[in-house]
Amino acid sequence: MSEVVILGVGMIPFGRHPQKLLVEMAAEAARAALKDAAVEPGEVGAGFFSNGLAARLFSDHTIGQNVYWEVGINRIPIYNIENACTSASTAFCLACGQVAAGQVEVAMVVGAEKMYVPELGLIHSGQSELDTQLGLVAPAGFALRAKRHMAEFGTTEAQLAAVAVKNRRHAALNPNAQFRDPITPEDVLSAPMVVDPLTRLQCCPNADGAAAVVLASADFARWRRGASRGKVRPVDVRAAVYCTGSYANPQDLTHWETDERGCRLAYEAAGVGPEDLNVVECHDAFTISEILHYEALGLCPAGEGGRLAEAGETALGGRIPVNPSGGLLSRGHPPGATGAAQLCEIVAQLRGEAGPRQVPGARVGLAHCMGGDKAADSKSCTVVVLSV
Amino acid sequence: MSEVVILGVGMIPFGRHPQKLLVEMAAEAARAALKDAAVEPGEVGAGFFSNGLAARLFSDHTIGQNVYWEVGINRIPIYNIENACTSASTAFCLACGQVAAGQVEVAMVVGAEKMYVPELGLIHSGQSELDTQLGLVAPAGFALRAKRHMAEFGTTEAQLAAVAVKNRRHAALNPNAQFRDPITPEDVLSAPMVVDPLTRLQCCPNADGAAAVVLASADFARWRRGASRGKVRPVDVRAAVYCTGSYANPQDLTHWETDERGCRLAYEAAGVGPEDLNVVECHDAFTISEILHYEALGLCPAGEGGRLAEAGETALGGRIPVNPSGGLLSRGHPPGATGAAQLCEIVAQLRGEAGPRQVPGARVGLAHCMGGDKAADSKSCTVVVLSV
Repeated sequence: MSEVVILGVGMIPFGRHPQKLLVEMAAEAARAALKDAAVEPGEVGAGFFSNGLAARLFSDHTIGQNVYWEVGINRIPIYNIENACTSASTAFCLACGQVAAGQVEVAMVVGAEKMYVPELGLIHSGQSELDTQLGLVAPAGFALRAKRHMAEFGTTEAQLAAVAVKNRRHAALNPNAQFRDPITPEDVLSAPMVVDPLTRLQCCPNADGAAAVVLASADFARWRRGASRGKVRPVDVRAAVYCTGSYANPQDLTHWETDERGCRLAYEAAGVGPEDLNVVECHDAFTISEILHYEALGLCPAGEGGRLAEAGETALGGRIPVNPSGGLLSRGHPPGATGAAQLCEIVAQLRGEAGPRQVPGARVGLAHCMGGDKAADSKSCTVVVLSV
Repeated sequence: MSEVVILGVGMIPFGRHPQKLLVEMAAEAARAALKDAAVEPGEVGAGFFSNGLAARLFSDHTIGQNVYWEVGINRIPIYNIENACTSASTAFCLACGQVAAGQVEVAMVVGAEKMYVPELGLIHSGQSELDTQLGLVAPAGFALRAKRHMAEFGTTEAQLAAVAVKNRRHAALNPNAQFRDPITPEDVLSAPMVVDPLTRLQCCPNADGAAAVVLASADFARWRRGASRGKVRPVDVRAAVYCTGSYANPQDLTHWETDERGCRLAYEAAGVGPEDLNVVECHDAFTISEILHYEALGLCPAGEGGRLAEAGETALGGRIPVNPSGGLLSRGHPPGATGAAQLCEIVAQLRGEAGPRQVPGARVGLAHCMGGDKAADSKSCTVVVLSV
């Protein structure tokens, strides 16, 4: 995969955008990514668009065509990809495959979501999921994992809260983050309870948002970097893994086989290990999620995730900063855009363009998503490793 | 692309399936395709699922994971592709690309749609399409094209009706078709008017349905064919083209540039021309559509499509049979499944397994879809050329 690079990224601030249509938000992110990549619309050979909810909320279909049309791109294959929280990262993996295979020289991934609408209601999981109808909505499922992690490994409420506090501290340094006011552990623990032990500040918020990534072959990137006199700064894609599997082993609530397998496959493909990472974006949909992802990623031994957070090792300035963007918890989580927003952050970090939240000298970064709609069946995991 | 083959196909009869969930219909088609291909679930390396409406109608997301889980396939990448009427054929093009690139040896495409539900209502096109809100729904757009074709080329109502009558005659020979009772030109012309000149029998019906295709590398296919003692009968994929563009040039309602470009690209990739085709499935969403597609495909000169149908040249027994399955008009049109159902038909024809609707000695076949949600912007065209 060393022949694929990210040439440019772009996103809009996540939050509430009542005045903007989904297509407008997506087009704004796409234009920013094209500009960052110094790529003209006519040079994009394949377009991927990821979204989770618009068909359901707005009865919109084939939205990608409209997004690309807005930015002056048409006549090319445009793929509309839906994969819940992993929508954009799945689209990125598909795009990488086409560039790696030489089927296209320049591809773009645009992800967008609009959630602040009256139509949203509770995100349930469709007619076929009995568990959800009976109350096992997402926060409940993750709360069960948190309780079990506490019982098995002595993880504490303070350790859970440490994740939320850290990510908010990071978000304060990110102008694109949705929630930037500092919070304390007391704020987190005294926030309204959603499902015990997860309070509201431990659950990622709804968000409107859009993010985009321009990919290219290394050959194209070298040429464009030369033509731009070094202004364009490509980042190498070392691995882009997408796998599925069960996230719900009722016998073992504190390990996610799919998560661990996805990470292992990505490390193998990239030829790196967790010790080589300088910065990570992971899928902190809930505080307990980030702790479980630490363990799957090999940032600490199983059961040690809570202590890792509490010791500040995953904060900016710590051993391995996780979610310097603020993560899903504070940057916000528009599912169709999240996977691309993570790549925006890792690219900024590896280019040394992350400003006050820069991880000094970052050379290798990883972006991790999990997604899926069903409590009991097959879910998704994506892991992307980038380097400069 | 000569290294990719279709190893197996499967579908369920199109029509009304009130007793079956979407996932059940899809799984039934998938099992049939796996059986036809003599492929075990564990051998499938990538899964594609296509659907247009389920997120909107049932609030279902990441349905592909559930479909593949149902048939015993998980832990692999599963892609949920939405592209209106071209959903399944777009998924097929993506899958072909992965097999052609050697990224996966065996891939599967499953397409399904469930439309006979009270929630359906009128299929409109979302908040962003003003034209549709003002009345330019799909039948109206195609009626304008029909009127213009009549004015420019002298196409008659009888010629339009000939398409519907032919496709119904074909459907009578297809046990998987939704409407199989013969109809006369008088039936067609006296049916309730939808939008002048298109009567109800000139507009494709809603349908529930599912269809699936198993693809493989030629190497895998040779090995499996040997192991099956010749029972497995691969069909070569000569071209799988997906392109987008405008279908709405208000200055020229009787040509579709995107259609013509998609067909030209497919002929170039396959190294064949229209004169080499023995059988065609095309996107006869309306009678006028089939006539316009004849012309884009080069089956006749521009303006001659109506006469081609009336002369019986596109009927079974004619020079180049089109839609031997009954087409969208009579086999039925569940958008998420249609592209895969077309491939089921072409594969059956090329294997000589099409029974009473067999085109004798068919060696080269083409499947064509058009899709897209917007009246004025970017729409989709897919063209697949198969041969034995």
